[in-house]
Amino acid sequence: MTDHSPINDLQTYMDGLGVKAKAGARALRLASKAQKNKALLAMAAHIRAQSGEILQANAKDMEAGKAKGLSAAMLDRLLLDGGRIEGIAGGLEAIAALPEPVGVEDKRWTRPNGLTIAKVRVPIGVIGIIYESRPNVTADAGALCVKSGNAAILRGGSESAHSSGAIHACLTAGLEEAGLPASAIQMIATTDRAAVGMLLSGLNDSVSLIIPRGGKNLIARVQADARVPVLAHLEGLCHTYVHAKADPQMAIDIICNAKMRRTGVCGATETLLIDKAIAPKLLPLITDALTDLGCELRGDDRARELAIGINPVTDDDYATEYLDAILSVKVTDDIDDALGHISRYSSGHTDAIVTADDAAAARFLAEVDSAICVHNASTQYADGGEFGFGAEIGIATGRIHARGPVGAEHLTTYKYAVMGNGQTRPV
Amino acid sequence: MTDHSPINDLQTYMDGLGVKAKAGARALRLASKAQKNKALLAMAAHIRAQSGEILQANAKDMEAGKAKGLSAAMLDRLLLDGGRIEGIAGGLEAIAALPEPVGVEDKRWTRPNGLTIAKVRVPIGVIGIIYESRPNVTADAGALCVKSGNAAILRGGSESAHSSGAIHACLTAGLEEAGLPASAIQMIATTDRAAVGMLLSGLNDSVSLIIPRGGKNLIARVQADARVPVLAHLEGLCHTYVHAKADPQMAIDIICNAKMRRTGVCGATETLLIDKAIAPKLLPLITDALTDLGCELRGDDRARELAIGINPVTDDDYATEYLDAILSVKVTDDIDDALGHISRYSSGHTDAIVTADDAAAARFLAEVDSAICVHNASTQYADGGEFGFGAEIGIATGRIHARGPVGAEHLTTYKYAVMGNGQTRPV
Repeated sequence: MTDHSPINDLQTYMDGLGVKAKAGARALRLASKAQKNKALLAMAAHIRAQSGEILQANAKDMEAGKAKGLSAAMLDRLLLDGGRIEGIAGGLEAIAALPEPVGVEDKRWTRPNGLTIAKVRVPIGVIGIIYESRPNVTADAGALCVKSGNAAILRGGSESAHSSGAIHACLTAGLEEAGLPASAIQMIATTDRAAVGMLLSGLNDSVSLIIPRGGKNLIARVQADARVPVLAHLEGLCHTYVHAKADPQMAIDIICNAKMRRTGVCGATETLLIDKAIAPKLLPLITDALTDLGCELRGDDRARELAIGINPVTDDDYATEYLDAILSVKVTDDIDDALGHISRYSSGHTDAIVTADDAAAARFLAEVDSAICVHNASTQYADGGEFGFGAEIGIATGRIHARGPVGAEHLTTYKYAVMGNGQTRPV
Repeated sequence: MTDHSPINDLQTYMDGLGVKAKAGARALRLASKAQKNKALLAMAAHIRAQSGEILQANAKDMEAGKAKGLSAAMLDRLLLDGGRIEGIAGGLEAIAALPEPVGVEDKRWTRPNGLTIAKVRVPIGVIGIIYESRPNVTADAGALCVKSGNAAILRGGSESAHSSGAIHACLTAGLEEAGLPASAIQMIATTDRAAVGMLLSGLNDSVSLIIPRGGKNLIARVQADARVPVLAHLEGLCHTYVHAKADPQMAIDIICNAKMRRTGVCGATETLLIDKAIAPKLLPLITDALTDLGCELRGDDRARELAIGINPVTDDDYATEYLDAILSVKVTDDIDDALGHISRYSSGHTDAIVTADDAAAARFLAEVDSAICVHNASTQYADGGEFGFGAEIGIATGRIHARGPVGAEHLTTYKYAVMGNGQTRPV
């Protein structure tokens, strides 16, 4: 054997993943709906059958995580139990039951010269997915890629390496049972961070898209270093604006849900904007309701004059995604003032208006430039399942390819089929 | 005045362009169809009215270009005359006449909980366009951005700086006549190459997309350095495959057109694949027809045995976008052989099959992974105008957001409007 330095070995290993992924992508691109769904159902069966092995692997990760001093929240994200494993298997079956996204014709038209043109959905190719501690992402992300005909190269967090490895073994077993190559879902088998840099370089043009799932530092590194397109979910700094003509009870119900249903999700509202015409009556009621739910409010001077128990707010607070039981509050002069605040501070994820005024609602929906604009509902509906997409791989906050919840159909691209009967183009 | 070093000045200038572009993008995003079209028609009128000034500016560029020793082909791309200026004005009017791409609802559906969700086309934001010598791109690119509601930051080639500047003045005059800010179409007013690097960095997240138009070196630099998404047109290494069951005369007509109608366009066929079952009869006829048109053929051994006047081909030839009157030829065993060759050498732009066999055509259209797959027509139909898109800003060869001809509708993205009547999400 020749002597390779570790870095040479890693590059060779990663380049090999790229080559195999391209072959896997070709097989998946040409696979039938039935074959892909057979693989997904077989994966679910393997997850159930191997639950003992998965739990053993997870116990190793949990032990190492405790020894490393991971926080209780991180340990909870890492933990698997019977219910969570059943959730993973059920998730795979739900993805199998989704409509087939590949081969769908977006449109078809005929030109005056008789050429017929069809715009047809096709897979993207090879997708690199970089995520952190939750081991269930291994199954969700791999399965969404299979459903949409893409090969996946997965890079999970080192904390969940054993759990993700055990789940990954079930996925490849399912692929092979359906006659599909295991190379359609590969997992990077080293925790060496240099492997991420190589993946981000595109592995000799093998990788067509990178999807990072995780905290700000991960996303920032991916966006800085990637040489291939990135579909990033940055943050959800979401607003709910209570307009002068809001129904008061609806406003209270929506803001309580939008802030407190779950505080740690990206669709949680972080800032309440409330019109000065309705604030004197409504803000005390909202403050009481949220305080009862354990929420801290931080407001501007006008808000603090109107309701008891609101702490002072800073500009930094308005720019902060709390992901916690804290709400920024600002009393606004009118809809222009509210739109201006959203334009300045929104992360472009989800913003809502509560109003009974159709003209104000129409203006808000047209002018707010976020991926999801909501009228008279909770911002916590920002979710692929709630949109009817089934599973989602994240909520995209960029401007191109896909915005909002990214489901199987958003992991496709398109091509044109041009059908003629001998047409040649005039000079 | 404080003393700035040149680099500080350039960074300040470029950052200022970014800030102004965002304001321009906001104005355009909210502009009505009528207002945008008024601007486009006013631009056309200014182009016609200022044709004298534009020709004077072009004369300066031509003089400098000749002094610099530009090639005849580059000087021809740079040259403007009365006909070309009228072409620019007519192009602006044609873009005004296109369907409005913003606000179009891709779909609308209602969830079981009563939420109605609409997926609506919206502008992307600020688009940076980097191009080379053709001054007409200034008008085409700026106008397509206006039509699609995007602000543009243009960076033309230094050779065409005077011509592009004179055209740009007509565009901003048109914007202002329609009550839109001149900042909606800005042109980088320096030929300093460092400005391109700053634009590619995104100007503090002001720029949402970069579109390079030019040769391989330009595209490669943009893809290596960009920190924002790039919609690139790489090259058109296009194939025409003549299947065993092709109509012979149709095959001759299509290949002559696909290769020789214009040899310098990206949709020109560079390689002929011909099935061994039909090659003995047909290849000599194709060779004669192409030779009469002044085309050099380079073929494999089987091709050279079948027809007189074919030079030898190399693997490098199969990988070359000639953009010239040269055609690579390969005799293929069957459709698998042809698909394998295309999979290896195609640039993913446009590939065609000529056949009377529906099953072979269907397989080709399904399995070839290029942006445009053609049956029984010339690859030179790869063009936004021929697709009915009106003007195009290029033909995208990447995998995400847009593939094939990029017209005004492809310079949009989408958002979701979620409309409820008080829905709160269950825990």
